[in-house]
Amino acid sequence: MGIGGIVEGKLNVHLVPHSHDDVGWLKTVDQYFVGSNNSIQGACVENVLDSVVMSLVRDPNRKFIFAEMAFFRRWWLLQSKNIQDVVKKLVASGQLEFVNGGWCMHDEAATHYIDMIDHTTLGHGLLKSIFNITPRAGWQIDPFGHSAVQAYLLGAELGFDSLHFARIDYQDRAKRKIDKSLEVIWRGSKTFGSSSQIFTNAFPNHYSAPNGFNFEVSGDFEPVQDSPLLFDMNVKKRVNDFIDAALTQANVTRTNHIMWTMGDDFQYQYAESWFKEMDKLIHYVNKDGRVNALYSTPSVYTDAKLASNVSWPLKTHDYFPYADGADSYWTGYFTSRPALKGYIRSLSGYYFAARQLEFLAGRRLRGPDTFSLGDALGIAQHHDAVTGTAKQHTTNDYEKRLAIGARKAEAVVTSALSCLTSSTSNCTIPTSTLSQCPLLNISYCPSTEKIPSGKSLVIVAYNPLGWNRRDYIRIPVKDANVIVQDSKGNTVKAQLIKFDSVTRNLRSFYTEAYLGISPQDVPKYFLLFRASVPPLGWNTYFVTETAGKGEYASMVDTPQNETIIIGPGSLKMSFSSKSGQLKRITNSRTGIDLPVQQSYLWYGSAADNQPSGAYIFHPTNSPPTIVSRSVPIKVIRGPLVDEVHQQFNPWIYQVTRLYKDKEHAEFEFIIGPIPTDDGVGKEVITRITADMVTNKVLYTDSNGRDFLKRVLNYREDWPLQVTQPVAGNYYPLNLGMYTTDNKTELSVLVDRATGGASINDGQMEVMLHRRILYDDGRGVGESLDETVCNKTTCQGLAVRGNYYMSVDQAGSGSRWRRTTGQEIYSPLLLAFTHEKQEDYKASHSTRSTTMDPNYSLPPNVALITLQELTDGNVLLRLAHLYEAGEDVDLSTIVKVELKKMFAAKRIKAIKETSLSANQDKSAIKSMPWKVEGGSETEPAAVRGGPIDPSTLIVELGPMEIRTFILQI
Amino acid sequence: MGIGGIVEGKLNVHLVPHSHDDVGWLKTVDQYFVGSNNSIQGACVENVLDSVVMSLVRDPNRKFIFAEMAFFRRWWLLQSKNIQDVVKKLVASGQLEFVNGGWCMHDEAATHYIDMIDHTTLGHGLLKSIFNITPRAGWQIDPFGHSAVQAYLLGAELGFDSLHFARIDYQDRAKRKIDKSLEVIWRGSKTFGSSSQIFTNAFPNHYSAPNGFNFEVSGDFEPVQDSPLLFDMNVKKRVNDFIDAALTQANVTRTNHIMWTMGDDFQYQYAESWFKEMDKLIHYVNKDGRVNALYSTPSVYTDAKLASNVSWPLKTHDYFPYADGADSYWTGYFTSRPALKGYIRSLSGYYFAARQLEFLAGRRLRGPDTFSLGDALGIAQHHDAVTGTAKQHTTNDYEKRLAIGARKAEAVVTSALSCLTSSTSNCTIPTSTLSQCPLLNISYCPSTEKIPSGKSLVIVAYNPLGWNRRDYIRIPVKDANVIVQDSKGNTVKAQLIKFDSVTRNLRSFYTEAYLGISPQDVPKYFLLFRASVPPLGWNTYFVTETAGKGEYASMVDTPQNETIIIGPGSLKMSFSSKSGQLKRITNSRTGIDLPVQQSYLWYGSAADNQPSGAYIFHPTNSPPTIVSRSVPIKVIRGPLVDEVHQQFNPWIYQVTRLYKDKEHAEFEFIIGPIPTDDGVGKEVITRITADMVTNKVLYTDSNGRDFLKRVLNYREDWPLQVTQPVAGNYYPLNLGMYTTDNKTELSVLVDRATGGASINDGQMEVMLHRRILYDDGRGVGESLDETVCNKTTCQGLAVRGNYYMSVDQAGSGSRWRRTTGQEIYSPLLLAFTHEKQEDYKASHSTRSTTMDPNYSLPPNVALITLQELTDGNVLLRLAHLYEAGEDVDLSTIVKVELKKMFAAKRIKAIKETSLSANQDKSAIKSMPWKVEGGSETEPAAVRGGPIDPSTLIVELGPMEIRTFILQI
Repeated sequence: MGIGGIVEGKLNVHLVPHSHDDVGWLKTVDQYFVGSNNSIQGACVENVLDSVVMSLVRDPNRKFIFAEMAFFRRWWLLQSKNIQDVVKKLVASGQLEFVNGGWCMHDEAATHYIDMIDHTTLGHGLLKSIFNITPRAGWQIDPFGHSAVQAYLLGAELGFDSLHFARIDYQDRAKRKIDKSLEVIWRGSKTFGSSSQIFTNAFPNHYSAPNGFNFEVSGDFEPVQDSPLLFDMNVKKRVNDFIDAALTQANVTRTNHIMWTMGDDFQYQYAESWFKEMDKLIHYVNKDGRVNALYSTPSVYTDAKLASNVSWPLKTHDYFPYADGADSYWTGYFTSRPALKGYIRSLSGYYFAARQLEFLAGRRLRGPDTFSLGDALGIAQHHDAVTGTAKQHTTNDYEKRLAIGARKAEAVVTSALSCLTSSTSNCTIPTSTLSQCPLLNISYCPSTEKIPSGKSLVIVAYNPLGWNRRDYIRIPVKDANVIVQDSKGNTVKAQLIKFDSVTRNLRSFYTEAYLGISPQDVPKYFLLFRASVPPLGWNTYFVTETAGKGEYASMVDTPQNETIIIGPGSLKMSFSSKSGQLKRITNSRTGIDLPVQQSYLWYGSAADNQPSGAYIFHPTNSPPTIVSRSVPIKVIRGPLVDEVHQQFNPWIYQVTRLYKDKEHAEFEFIIGPIPTDDGVGKEVITRITADMVTNKVLYTDSNGRDFLKRVLNYREDWPLQVTQPVAGNYYPLNLGMYTTDNKTELSVLVDRATGGASINDGQMEVMLHRRILYDDGRGVGESLDETVCNKTTCQGLAVRGNYYMSVDQAGSGSRWRRTTGQEIYSPLLLAFTHEKQEDYKASHSTRSTTMDPNYSLPPNVALITLQELTDGNVLLRLAHLYEAGEDVDLSTIVKVELKKMFAAKRIKAIKETSLSANQDKSAIKSMPWKVEGGSETEPAAVRGGPIDPSTLIVELGPMEIRTFILQI
Repeated sequence: MGIGGIVEGKLNVHLVPHSHDDVGWLKTVDQYFVGSNNSIQGACVENVLDSVVMSLVRDPNRKFIFAEMAFFRRWWLLQSKNIQDVVKKLVASGQLEFVNGGWCMHDEAATHYIDMIDHTTLGHGLLKSIFNITPRAGWQIDPFGHSAVQAYLLGAELGFDSLHFARIDYQDRAKRKIDKSLEVIWRGSKTFGSSSQIFTNAFPNHYSAPNGFNFEVSGDFEPVQDSPLLFDMNVKKRVNDFIDAALTQANVTRTNHIMWTMGDDFQYQYAESWFKEMDKLIHYVNKDGRVNALYSTPSVYTDAKLASNVSWPLKTHDYFPYADGADSYWTGYFTSRPALKGYIRSLSGYYFAARQLEFLAGRRLRGPDTFSLGDALGIAQHHDAVTGTAKQHTTNDYEKRLAIGARKAEAVVTSALSCLTSSTSNCTIPTSTLSQCPLLNISYCPSTEKIPSGKSLVIVAYNPLGWNRRDYIRIPVKDANVIVQDSKGNTVKAQLIKFDSVTRNLRSFYTEAYLGISPQDVPKYFLLFRASVPPLGWNTYFVTETAGKGEYASMVDTPQNETIIIGPGSLKMSFSSKSGQLKRITNSRTGIDLPVQQSYLWYGSAADNQPSGAYIFHPTNSPPTIVSRSVPIKVIRGPLVDEVHQQFNPWIYQVTRLYKDKEHAEFEFIIGPIPTDDGVGKEVITRITADMVTNKVLYTDSNGRDFLKRVLNYREDWPLQVTQPVAGNYYPLNLGMYTTDNKTELSVLVDRATGGASINDGQMEVMLHRRILYDDGRGVGESLDETVCNKTTCQGLAVRGNYYMSVDQAGSGSRWRRTTGQEIYSPLLLAFTHEKQEDYKASHSTRSTTMDPNYSLPPNVALITLQELTDGNVLLRLAHLYEAGEDVDLSTIVKVELKKMFAAKRIKAIKETSLSANQDKSAIKSMPWKVEGGSETEPAAVRGGPIDPSTLIVELGPMEIRTFILQI
């Protein structure tokens, strides 16, 4: 018997006891924890942890792994000191091992990399503080496909040695079983290559125990019966069963080590039921001697694999999309519940800004903090949360948690902004009259809608980005007779745009549905003006009612010609006045001139043996229905923006905007209620068709970070048998996508997670909303049929959102995508108050940056975390935004001067850490895996060197993210 | 807070955690124990005991009760010394309390009192030896009605303080809720009255927890949520729920103490799930303060009830029959599976005899013992075993256990008999050629069927009764040319009766079905002769083939007259030669002359909303179908017996026998296969109709012990609303029943548990077999449709059995019933060998008694237990057979002289104990309960005085059973 129970020369069956505990799905996270609502699913995570601990204590050979810190924290806080001490011993001895260790087992398609990092940091920090441990294994057993960013960033860069999961394409799996390539060395990053690789174990079946070896209490299994006191002794049979199953798996696995995932969803309600059987099996199987069985964990298993010293297949790229059958592509969830996805994304940016402000103003020991929002966002990254694949009541719970977290973060922001901007008040007792408008998405903002007479509306705009920024502020106002002034008293150019009826109706229905109120006064206009805000700083604008008529009115254009051209700047869009269709985009500055169409369509949801549903996108065989071939066009022009308003059909409204100084088109859509009274589920896309030969190639982002090349009806890893020519070509978008021919690059960015595809050359489509009448049979048991009710009526959920389009010369689109991507993620944070302009100015700093006024971050670097930790240290993360070779100028090593960045503070000490800040960067040792085909020469990855504590200059190579703990 | 958590002046809610663990039902006892076959029912008693112990250790306030020692023994033997020590502490501290403590929770309708005592003794002995404890509470929560013998004999006489159960008639319960008489003082014995009373608690609902308070793992309940970390805190609501339920129950309960049975069938699979919730409820309910909640047990509860010092309603008689709805009388199970019931009863008698022999020959430390049979019989007393209400596969398991136990006991018997009868061999190494014939019930006995040439068939007949006995031995033989000789060489009168075709077919089918063999030679005759055997002794008979023709032929009578009279002795029966019907019974000795008819009928099983089934007898509204109004009659006469053979229909065959020196009629029936191809289930009865005015009164036995008066359509305790005029008047029979007018007493005895009734004056009916096509909806989920298969065909189970009828003068039937009852229970035990008569005689004692040759037990006393215990001590039980006033002469105090009874042994010490031999008789203290209506004067019960160790004379008053431990 070798170390940890391994026997050399025998087939070692690693029994890995686990319970797959969804952080909300059919039940809410708390219902799962306490075991309520068991009529839906008999599941109680408290039982799992209680009983596992009791069982581990009973026998020191037993092991268990646990993943979800959202659950573990709940449990831990309820335990007595005594039990906590017991658990600490179990962790120290290796009996209890944490895998993943993030707040949840996050999804990998609909998640933004910053959210992935944030919740993992939260969980890893908890594990570090309680147990002083760092997890070693990625345990993504259930997510529906696997991303490149998961492999290298949330894997190798976390310091993980291995990554384990169950779900890969059924064709891929079949092939990998044949050539024993389920286990690979995965290099998820083109930029980093082998320097960010990870041993990856895709299971031969599911993450459940082999057939007949699930030992859940009251489950239907054949217990090992070894007592001569009882009938039906079956030791020999069960040992043979075990060996048969082991040999079957050994036939598709390299080395003498196979892993059995001994668990399933919410198993170990009574852990002893499992351990009792596994104890006996291990005993009798090893007595038999043909194979060796042992309790194990992913890290023990990975060490054994490494020690076997064989070569592994190389895997690059990712594991998307995922299909578990010919008509079962899990590409619907990329878009499912777009409102939830939008809410999560907007709060992600807000959480980023709120933590900055919390740090900048100084963290309060008492009072609201940002933890609740981090907690809620951590939960929301779960693979049945942001994915939109939870039941409706659970989704409501996610949203409630987010709203509560947002409310607390709002208080932090208000207090911090108030403190930062105040030139007099004592920051330790912040008294703020600032308010924010989280419901601007439904055009509802009491602060801007009613300005008390004699006072101005004071707008404080905070810029969470590290760059100076010019951006447009758009707020609803009651009347046209206003002027906007900047902090110096200069009148600012502005533009008023009348509320359209769609916006008015949306506002009216949703304020009633969500707030229970029906505001009497409906604002008549949006007031638009351009703000300029310094990096990590703010600026202040004053909106004041004037006696006379306002100056800012827009002009409604009445089209005369066949072609309507809009665009106040160099970017122009041409529309047909007859059909209302977009025809062409030109840019006088870049010389771009591209025929482009844009239209809305919907796929009918299949309702056959494999219905389309929350997970699965399965359109009927018919081509998508074009919403309208001809659509009325209403053009509004002004000094700052030209808008094209179009009602494509009764439930799709779109405003296309071209701003004066922006070289992209902004599309705002309101989609819904999607009608289903024809009995047909509908999955709505916007499709952009350009006159380009794109050779079936599309590039889509991985979790908002890297761009991956997608080729129509093609997979790198196996000869794809095409069964779903549309659904099988959908990919997740978090940042966006682009395609290119040798002249032009056409890019689309999105404001939330969604799915996109290029089914035909020159075409890109984004799925924006789905309303479906059937369940797709993957467990959620509900159709994806979101409705909203006011007092009198329920209707299908309408979704409002934006996407952005840019046309650039071939090879030069990345700068727009990267920069604009940051701006979309981190919009200006607006806070409002009402005060006389002079009074406000007298007591406030109206414009400032917390950085050196002459400094801003380089354009290829983004601040992605700035947070004061509970121990007073500061967590800083900087990210290079460009991949190697992505941009001629910007894909280079770059420097950030921390002294200038933190101009007002003094950095006393700095320590570089792993991505999740749970260990020194230098502590991460990569395992020396051998890869099949030997070591091809790849360009060495460029990474920044060690930081000099005196100069405090941080270097970042392409795609590099560096994490620091600062003492300030 | 008072003792044990009780608070005076408040309503105390006694939470009694329990798991109701059927010793076989839907699954076998071992399947329930190990948790296999969970697709039928998720149930594992090992989990219950494992997890309960873990939970009790976690908190010393927690309590749990456990009942079934068949399960506990399985578990205990698997535990480590460490766990055993933990459990000993839990028992010592009162956290773990055993209730009942028998092998199972026995049924109370289909069980014989000797079996009830035996398995209880087995369980109590185990508890005594492990924990040195004596259970205090009867916990019969599930049995389907409750017997008088349970109350006084298996209650008070065991030393129990209380008895608890759930199932009483729904009308009875409704009334008792109104007048708060669910809890009573029950005096089950007319003879003993208040000296054998017990506090009895019938639950207001079922034995489950109150609605909403079942906390089984993965069950659908609302957990108490008290953590502010989580959503949905509900402490206030749950406390209110608790108090509401408590007050509801308090409204139907006397005193400030109510019991909540916190459990259900096979609950506590993961005990912590229950205790976690109960801990919280106790904490918050007591914090609330309106009521007081506590962990409790039946004994704690009973002490509290006594301390309340109030008066309780008096209950006499019993709780049969049980109905849980207007058409749902649980009177079918009295008869369900008559073959199983017959097997159990015959093995009960065999077990009794085998233990005697084991003791008499000296118990072996090695080699087979009688434990297995005691174990199997103990299990078979379970309320879903002998009741016939288990699934077929479980029933097969019961029968397999019984057969294994019987086989081992057979070895004990063979060895002991061989040893006792040998005049030469060394008893410590018994080598026996004796064999037995357990399949005589299908007329299969290889030993008697083939006698090797030159040898005799040696028949050793052992008499387990304490009286000298003359009885008939009936064995199949091949040929007629045999003579029978007694041990002195005298030729014995014998009679040969030809095998009839029904017997031949039965033998052929069942030997093939059960043994897989088709014997070529079918015996041609039954050989019948009368044996005389001394008490607790044996006699030997020799059957030898003779050259000439046998002397013993019977005569087949060809009826000439209208009336056929049979009977070789003073008892005669008249039959009509035309109709074949019995017409009259006369006894020239007693002057009895009673017109009597006997016929077979069947009730059609209802197949409506409440089908008839294993539990419930629900006949259709039609009167029962008479099987035949006219039946051919075949009369066989001889010197020892006259037989009337009648084929009532193709599937009912009856032989009526009148023996020379017996004053009763023996009816042997073969019923089956019952045809159901008409889609109708059939419940077959024999009905005896006498010309008597019986005033609706019938007397039936209670577990074969006391006789209780039954009045048609009447209940002592409430005004019966008659909904089922037949099923509602059925009562369980174990010994038999009788009815009387002022002249005559008509008695019927049965050979197994069954149901009987008197629906019309002068009529008695016994249900003999049931074959039903539907399930009755009480959980078993199978129709009661027993079939048997040989290699080629399956057919309905045929049942062969006997009942016995006697007609006596009014008031004088008890002597026949009591004496014959003992003979039926304890038939002569036959063993066979083949040897030359002279050789056998030379080496064996052919006739002997182990008692003083001049002594026998008085006719009103039966030996009911004689057993050598594992510690070498001897367990002796003597039972007075008569109730007070039952017989003019025999209902008196009587003496047994142990010195003479154990003539060959010396009694060194004697100790009288409780019925189950687990404590000194003197240690039993009865509780001073107050009974409503004050203390009516009742005649003092007559009981024997203390035993004088020098004279060793035991006195027994009417119905008294005395239990002794003897050192020999």
